[in-house]
Amino acid sequence: MEQRKKHASGCPIAYTMNLFGDRWSLLIVRDLMFLNRRTYGELAQCPEGIATNILADRLKQLESAGIIRKSRNLHNRRSYNYALTAKGCDLIPMFMEIMIWGARYDSQTRISAALIERITTDREAFISEIRSRFLES
Amino acid sequence: MEQRKKHASGCPIAYTMNLFGDRWSLLIVRDLMFLNRRTYGELAQCPEGIATNILADRLKQLESAGIIRKSRNLHNRRSYNYALTAKGCDLIPMFMEIMIWGARYDSQTRISAALIERITTDREAFISEIRSRFLES
Repeated sequence: MEQRKKHASGCPIAYTMNLFGDRWSLLIVRDLMFLNRRTYGELAQCPEGIATNILADRLKQLESAGIIRKSRNLHNRRSYNYALTAKGCDLIPMFMEIMIWGARYDSQTRISAALIERITTDREAFISEIRSRFLES
Repeated sequence: MEQRKKHASGCPIAYTMNLFGDRWSLLIVRDLMFLNRRTYGELAQCPEGIATNILADRLKQLESAGIIRKSRNLHNRRSYNYALTAKGCDLIPMFMEIMIWGARYDSQTRISAALIERITTDREAFISEIRSRFLES
């Protein structure tokens, strides 16, 4: 019911925020997108300290939203790798803008001015580089 | 404690998401940014149906985060107008990317393809137009 009501507005911003639900999903996508984490174990090392039940739940949500996909690890058949789908890769520009804004206003930011400069001036190349880690060209 | 831990990562994406806290704050900024809502009464008409206690709380949070500012209504001294600050206006590119992604993937989107086309091809002009509603040039 709540779900339907939220979605009924037809607003693309509400749609996006509704899919993410909370900031943990965004941080998991960040870890896949920029920190090259691929396994459950690596994602559990989220710098903000994610609880394992939240991680498992958000991975399922992101998978059912079509933003990430899960595949068996080639070297360990009991383990899985996670990756962004094409739909997930289309979030790269949004994450770049979140990053640029945060870096500008957070006095304690740990991101280098050089990286922000590169993202800003070499936007398309940066997007292509991240995409190529997940999608065949 | 939780607040400190979340912030301690130094990640600009975590910083931004931490400031917003939840999707209601994002929807309030959307209403100011794109729907020209300026008063408490107008913001209470949020299409997704915001509760008044949540609205009041998030307005305070956004004001203390320096994203919005409150000023007395010139025509009714007992009422206030809300507007984006320069820091709030710097969120326009992020909101545009959230909008573009949502419009692309939401089959029930109500946003026109023409608007998305304009945002994509005429990015800087669109940003300037929204900024000019809040900031003197």
